[in-house]
Amino acid sequence: MKKARLEAFSDGVLAIIITIMVLEIKVPHGEQFSDLKGLIPIFLSYLLSFLYIGIYWNNHHHMVSTVHLVTGNILWANLHLLFWLSLIPFATGWIGENHFSAAPMSLYGFILLMAGLAYYILQSLIIKTEGRDSLLKKAIGKDLKGKISPFLYLAAIALSWVNSLIAGLIYLIAALIWLIPDKRIERALRQNKEAATTNDL
Amino acid sequence: MKKARLEAFSDGVLAIIITIMVLEIKVPHGEQFSDLKGLIPIFLSYLLSFLYIGIYWNNHHHMVSTVHLVTGNILWANLHLLFWLSLIPFATGWIGENHFSAAPMSLYGFILLMAGLAYYILQSLIIKTEGRDSLLKKAIGKDLKGKISPFLYLAAIALSWVNSLIAGLIYLIAALIWLIPDKRIERALRQNKEAATTNDL
Amino acid sequence: MKKARLEAFSDGVLAIIITIMVLEIKVPHGEQFSDLKGLIPIFLSYLLSFLYIGIYWNNHHHMVSTVHLVTGNILWANLHLLFWLSLIPFATGWIGENHFSAAPMSLYGFILLMAGLAYYILQSLIIKTEGRDSLLKKAIGKDLKGKISPFLYLAAIALSWVNSLIAGLIYLIAALIWLIPDKRIERALRQNKEAATTNDL
Amino acid sequence: MKKARLEAFSDGVLAIIITIMVLEIKVPHGEQFSDLKGLIPIFLSYLLSFLYIGIYWNNHHHMVSTVHLVTGNILWANLHLLFWLSLIPFATGWIGENHFSAAPMSLYGFILLMAGLAYYILQSLIIKTEGRDSLLKKAIGKDLKGKISPFLYLAAIALSWVNSLIAGLIYLIAALIWLIPDKRIERALRQNKEAATTNDL
Repeated sequence: MKKARLEAFSDGVLAIIITIMVLEIKVPHGEQFSDLKGLIPIFLSYLLSFLYIGIYWNNHHHMVSTVHLVTGNILWANLHLLFWLSLIPFATGWIGENHFSAAPMSLYGFILLMAGLAYYILQSLIIKTEGRDSLLKKAIGKDLKGKISPFLYLAAIALSWVNSLIAGLIYLIAALIWLIPDKRIERALRQNKEAATTNDL
Repeated sequence: MKKARLEAFSDGVLAIIITIMVLEIKVPHGEQFSDLKGLIPIFLSYLLSFLYIGIYWNNHHHMVSTVHLVTGNILWANLHLLFWLSLIPFATGWIGENHFSAAPMSLYGFILLMAGLAYYILQSLIIKTEGRDSLLKKAIGKDLKGKISPFLYLAAIALSWVNSLIAGLIYLIAALIWLIPDKRIERALRQNKEAATTNDL
Repeated sequence: MKKARLEAFSDGVLAIIITIMVLEIKVPHGEQFSDLKGLIPIFLSYLLSFLYIGIYWNNHHHMVSTVHLVTGNILWANLHLLFWLSLIPFATGWIGENHFSAAPMSLYGFILLMAGLAYYILQSLIIKTEGRDSLLKKAIGKDLKGKISPFLYLAAIALSWVNSLIAGLIYLIAALIWLIPDKRIERALRQNKEAATTNDL
Repeated sequence: MKKARLEAFSDGVLAIIITIMVLEIKVPHGEQFSDLKGLIPIFLSYLLSFLYIGIYWNNHHHMVSTVHLVTGNILWANLHLLFWLSLIPFATGWIGENHFSAAPMSLYGFILLMAGLAYYILQSLIIKTEGRDSLLKKAIGKDLKGKISPFLYLAAIALSWVNSLIAGLIYLIAALIWLIPDKRIERALRQNKEAATTNDL
């Protein structure tokens, strides 16, 4: 029962976040396709953020499906995650308005970092509440994606000041990592690691 | 369980899309009915898009009700559909702002085309997941509507540059086709085809 | 199953309608209470529309709870109702912006009239689908409120051009009629009728 | 069944309220971090209101989970609560726009006071409907938090005119009281009372 409302509220907030971002794409007064040119950075930042909110919704969906008991702490950890995600439309708008310049790009990374942290806290709380044999713990395994993501965000934040397109590319890669099914990624990373070890010999 | 959240999230996003379009109908400062005149194209484009989102919600509703297993691919195909639908308020606003001129009208058709494609992908994925005897496959039959719609959109995109009112009329017809119950349409099309064949003799 | 989504979608749309109206109450730049004075008509129109959407949600809630079979017609009759209700934020904003002047006040009544008609169509369709012994038919009884409301709206539309405050008062009364529990109203009307009959003797 | 829709509608409205507040944080045109400086009061007021809506959602969630019968009165008491909460985004925007000046700060407190009152009315109605042995009555116990909060709001409203930062601090404390698990608070208050009594001797 409680879980149903946690899901319903999160779905509501995420649905609104993903949709209000489109309000940033302001209708131009001109009637030519060329009048849309100025909207390209706004559209691209919308696309990236749509992807991120979609990934969070997807993962949240899977994570919460393993929960049996919703405690007060879990409710607040969930609200904490929603808080950081609610700032994404703002950061997205700032990026688009300023054509991917340094400060907006690094703020975007900071918000992703904090959302990632909030997600990690929520995940840890659920595992702690569910106990050692929790389904979630087994499902996330070594949580490679979760461990790599913050480093990618930190790299992108730093690189925003060198070249904001590289930062944008890293945000895109960090998103795509979550899209590709887990096993392949893990296998790819393992092979990559083995290759690196072989090179070192 | 999983299905419930897929539906809840889609309902949320569609409900927001259908409602934020109304924000484009900006309240006029004047207090006469004549002050509403300038809003007529915006109102008409709102009406058309309300119809389209309503149809998508309706069809989505029926399609998802046949699903038994929600896979990761289905979740993403669904988000892909929601992405294109989320651009409808923007295109609607652009049409209304520029009194049905060519570029906005063809962009509108392009978004409908992409949404139609995304719907087709989602439908195919569900049928593939459900197996050969899937309820959905039986329900859609030859999927005449689904096959006709993209040609109507393409025709409207091209005709936008000739006469945007004709394009608008085609969008309306393409919507109405989905409103009329299936059997009658199919019968009408069959009779039409037979008539055409008879004419050819 | 189907019913759950009809309710979820309607709840979503009504929740958004009731909340986006608050966006019309624009934050003033001044920091004195006197800076809020200009917002009083906007606030009052918000209050009235909040009441109406609340009543519609409440009645919709009761009506749909009696439904066993959701047909395609019912889905579309429901969307038709939501369409008219979605225009209430616009009419509310127009009223507030122009301090209850004649044209906005009569447009407001027109939208209420159309929403009332859409509600009546939906109600009739449900009763027809549920059959003669439908729970809804018994519940609404003679549907006095439903029959009185359109006349009140029509009166208010006409009186908007004489005195818009009287029109506003009628809208308020038409709303309050729905708030007061049924039995008392019916008894009051019966007594009123008897009194009138007695007077006629 | 009825309860599910009460929850769904409330979740929808609360999700929208919590998210539209973020629209008040307008994207700045500049691309430097220094361009965000002007947004700090708006961000802080957003944070405070996010906390309050989160607390209300949390408490609403717990309260409604004890309900067995949803009466018409409960539906309207719930809408009454949502009405006051729907005004929080406006008050939040006014605070942020005017850097925590006196009138906006006291209006904020007034809305919190009315929302608190509406919550109390809803709570009382539920207890009355559920009967003397209602789970809710046992759960809230002496309802210390509920009894202290209005006095804190009143104090903050008055102190807004002396020093608005003190008022802001009180709003924050009034929120944090709800965040800390009950037992500790009650114990702390009891000890405080005992200490006060000891001092009196």
